[in-house]
Amino acid sequence: MSQSQVRIIPLGGLGEIGRNMMAVEYEDDIIVIDAGVMFPEEGMPGIDFVIPDITYLARNRDRVRAVLITHGHEDHTGALPYVLPDLDAPVYASRLTHGLITVKLREHGLLKSSSLNVVEPNAPFRVGRLEVEFFRVCHSIPDAMGIAIHTPLGAIVHTGDFKIDHTPVDGHTTDFAKLAELAAGGVLLLCSDSTYAEMEGYTPSEQVVRGSIENVVAGAEARVIVATFASLISRVQMVMDAAVANRRKVAVVGRSMRNNVSMALDMGYLSAPDDLIVPLKEAKRLPHNRLVILATGAQGEPTSALVRMSRGEHKDVEIETGDTVIISSSPIPGNETLVAKTIDDLFRRGAEVISSRTATVHVHGHASREELKLMLNLVRPTYFVPVHGEHRHLIAHARLAQSLGMDPEDTFVLEDGDILEIEDGWAGVVEHMPFEDVYVAGHRLWGRHSSVLAERNRLSTDGVVAVGLTLDAKTGAPLSPPSLESRGFDELKRAQDLLENASQVVHSMLESQSGKVLDFDQIERTVTVSVSDLLWKETKRRPTVLTLVERVERS
Amino acid sequence: MSQSQVRIIPLGGLGEIGRNMMAVEYEDDIIVIDAGVMFPEEGMPGIDFVIPDITYLARNRDRVRAVLITHGHEDHTGALPYVLPDLDAPVYASRLTHGLITVKLREHGLLKSSSLNVVEPNAPFRVGRLEVEFFRVCHSIPDAMGIAIHTPLGAIVHTGDFKIDHTPVDGHTTDFAKLAELAAGGVLLLCSDSTYAEMEGYTPSEQVVRGSIENVVAGAEARVIVATFASLISRVQMVMDAAVANRRKVAVVGRSMRNNVSMALDMGYLSAPDDLIVPLKEAKRLPHNRLVILATGAQGEPTSALVRMSRGEHKDVEIETGDTVIISSSPIPGNETLVAKTIDDLFRRGAEVISSRTATVHVHGHASREELKLMLNLVRPTYFVPVHGEHRHLIAHARLAQSLGMDPEDTFVLEDGDILEIEDGWAGVVEHMPFEDVYVAGHRLWGRHSSVLAERNRLSTDGVVAVGLTLDAKTGAPLSPPSLESRGFDELKRAQDLLENASQVVHSMLESQSGKVLDFDQIERTVTVSVSDLLWKETKRRPTVLTLVERVERS
Repeated sequence: MSQSQVRIIPLGGLGEIGRNMMAVEYEDDIIVIDAGVMFPEEGMPGIDFVIPDITYLARNRDRVRAVLITHGHEDHTGALPYVLPDLDAPVYASRLTHGLITVKLREHGLLKSSSLNVVEPNAPFRVGRLEVEFFRVCHSIPDAMGIAIHTPLGAIVHTGDFKIDHTPVDGHTTDFAKLAELAAGGVLLLCSDSTYAEMEGYTPSEQVVRGSIENVVAGAEARVIVATFASLISRVQMVMDAAVANRRKVAVVGRSMRNNVSMALDMGYLSAPDDLIVPLKEAKRLPHNRLVILATGAQGEPTSALVRMSRGEHKDVEIETGDTVIISSSPIPGNETLVAKTIDDLFRRGAEVISSRTATVHVHGHASREELKLMLNLVRPTYFVPVHGEHRHLIAHARLAQSLGMDPEDTFVLEDGDILEIEDGWAGVVEHMPFEDVYVAGHRLWGRHSSVLAERNRLSTDGVVAVGLTLDAKTGAPLSPPSLESRGFDELKRAQDLLENASQVVHSMLESQSGKVLDFDQIERTVTVSVSDLLWKETKRRPTVLTLVERVERS
Repeated sequence: MSQSQVRIIPLGGLGEIGRNMMAVEYEDDIIVIDAGVMFPEEGMPGIDFVIPDITYLARNRDRVRAVLITHGHEDHTGALPYVLPDLDAPVYASRLTHGLITVKLREHGLLKSSSLNVVEPNAPFRVGRLEVEFFRVCHSIPDAMGIAIHTPLGAIVHTGDFKIDHTPVDGHTTDFAKLAELAAGGVLLLCSDSTYAEMEGYTPSEQVVRGSIENVVAGAEARVIVATFASLISRVQMVMDAAVANRRKVAVVGRSMRNNVSMALDMGYLSAPDDLIVPLKEAKRLPHNRLVILATGAQGEPTSALVRMSRGEHKDVEIETGDTVIISSSPIPGNETLVAKTIDDLFRRGAEVISSRTATVHVHGHASREELKLMLNLVRPTYFVPVHGEHRHLIAHARLAQSLGMDPEDTFVLEDGDILEIEDGWAGVVEHMPFEDVYVAGHRLWGRHSSVLAERNRLSTDGVVAVGLTLDAKTGAPLSPPSLESRGFDELKRAQDLLENASQVVHSMLESQSGKVLDFDQIERTVTVSVSDLLWKETKRRPTVLTLVERVERS
């Protein structure tokens, strides 16, 4: 790489929602922005989440100077425990983000071996030969930051997740002055959030939600249960405010909600009268019209508090006629069915359910098209890379930039693993590195090409049949009838009949060829194929067949 | 049951989308309306679809006089091959619906044993002691019908799936005159489509789509590929019309699309110039701006034509820069992610993609709230049962009826399996029968309580480990080292190490207790638990463990 080049390498979050990560490379220095997880999609059974592929970073770990985190959401922080040990670089984050990461790394026993640093906005600091600066943006969590990296070619501005909210709950607006100042100094490259690049107009202010929630709480005759993201601190503040205004207490249900509320109260990101929050036990003794319950489960997560309530399986809260449930979020793509089921179940138990489909009880945290235009026009970058979002969102955002007059040659819709090189007066993709999904399942990491997922998907479709054979080590003759067992294949009685029959067929076959075939691997293959074909003929299904051959020396 | 009672028994489609079925019972006569399938949800691996539970009907098969089908969609007809053999009743349907059912029953070898009858609208016929009448409604397939069943207590009116379209493509509007006539005669009960009971306003006419499609085709510089439901005959007609207007030919891709187009052309439900449709081979020789391709895959179905194109796996059509793809449908709940992925992949290959998110290239086939009000006010029933839709849709529809002045006591939000009894001046739910999901997987039927799905879901999460033991029948001593095999458990190398270790542990255990334990079932259980615990300790995962014990008599 020559002396005056910047290289931009997206390592997650382009063409997909989640596991955001990007590397910025200048001379000997690599700076990483974000390290998030993506939640598994259909066809990834047993996978906890997907993380960025850091092969390139690990190979160049001696050049990785820092990991900068824009804000505290899982899709920007969740991969830290899995990638930090391979990077061995200090982490920089704003105060709340730092608090959330601390909790996470402690859980993984990595806190002592990590270097975590709190960054204040508008306070430049040096990373390698480059100067880095965080600046405030609005998002659905406090202390969200954009990042400016100053290179000799100009500044690289990364918005992180952002929206433009002129009346944010925490009082901190997106820092227009800083953006204008950066623009005045010359911005080489803008990387801007594309999640809502298909959404016309402006994203409403979080304050719109305040009125809706207050109205619902004021009008409710019995309990109000509000489900939202545990990280949506400003939403939690509104719910508490509405409770105070209506002389209700607040009970907090669900592990992550309890942890986040207590952490945010401790750090001063939430404010509430001392006696507002009551333990659930005490809450149960309150009149129903004196209580608000804050719960997890707004995405229909199967083990969350709200979902357990909707199924009548929550040990402390039983939904009753008269309860009002506010679902203060909108379904993340892929969760629509889970959320719809939860709403249905709550209705069945007699609750009134208010969701973003029927009232303004949620606004999202990403800029819509008019805000994206404002960002582009404010920053006026030489080059533009839309980040965060599915491929069509990136394309929509690139076209939006072009509609404002940017040259299509200067806007880059990248894929993860692309290397965008920028030098004085020129930019282009010079290489595409192989880039993989990396899975976390328990403590395990698998690459995309693992056969494990394919095997699991096949097991889930047709089940498994195991065949046990004991053969004479000298003659190959069966020493007992083959035993067969199945799981997930067919109803017990029918499966037993089918397997009984298969056992006899295999036994005759083995006896008939006894002494002729002494290649035990071949016997195993033959039995597997025969059983598979037999079951196919009977059921038109092909369960996975596992044949175990035991060889016994007859004494 | 006394002499002047009507019983309404929903047997599918209440509180869920699909597998619609309802029984109407009067004295000795049972009339069934619709027999549809529901497509499987997450957590139902290997299931083709879910059908109604007809236990009650099968038990009373000598009283089942007829199965009336409202229209030709799968969620109203698809269960016929699985329930007709148990009901042995004649089927009545409109002409196109009859054509579609004929194809289906022939595929299942059931055509000869079934009695299929074509019904014209407004032509009453007798079923048992009751008179039945079909009347036209608009829906997204031609020849859709509502049904009136005349009982001594008044008429029962079932809308089927409907919308109100004053300018339908096939020229047949919903039959207001018939509805008014029924109202004049006195309607005891209205069962009305609730699918869009949360949608404000009016559903737009199918004609709105015509202009959008024509504009896209007129403006496209290369190929236009239109993906839609094969059953959306009126949409197919529009695409053909747009092709004719722009001097393009039409190639039809995808088995169900080809079958439906050819059937609809034969029966006169589609009209096109003789030379409009060209085989794909011929189409490949046409200039790209002279061609429209009609394809399946608008729901992102993995094996459909459009999805194969989007992945570069279609043998005849390769997507190129300049191609325009119109996705003329909106995602069915649960399919959102598949559709989004398909759009992304098409964009990646350079196509321009136009979907209902960005243009009016689809309108749906169900009435919105204003139309539902019109239906209620036109029919003015004594009792009201919202049908078709998730529970919250039924509630929204019931509340809508109450907002028009219906007594809440006269509106019934039912669950499948409920028995609603109506007699002179009174109606109420008198019983709830056990009601199950019934699965079709290949040729198999399983009840909800089958353990097979639970086993499959567990297999898919953690995989399977099979253990083969050969034991001395007299002493229980192992005659060879246990053999272990796994699928979907862990990466090959790591799995091998883990299983090798487990084999040694099991072997020592068996040797140590040889001669002491001779209960082979107990040995099997002990080994299963030990292997399971060992693997849990090492991996924090619990694969399904299948232990096969072979007993050998040592000679």
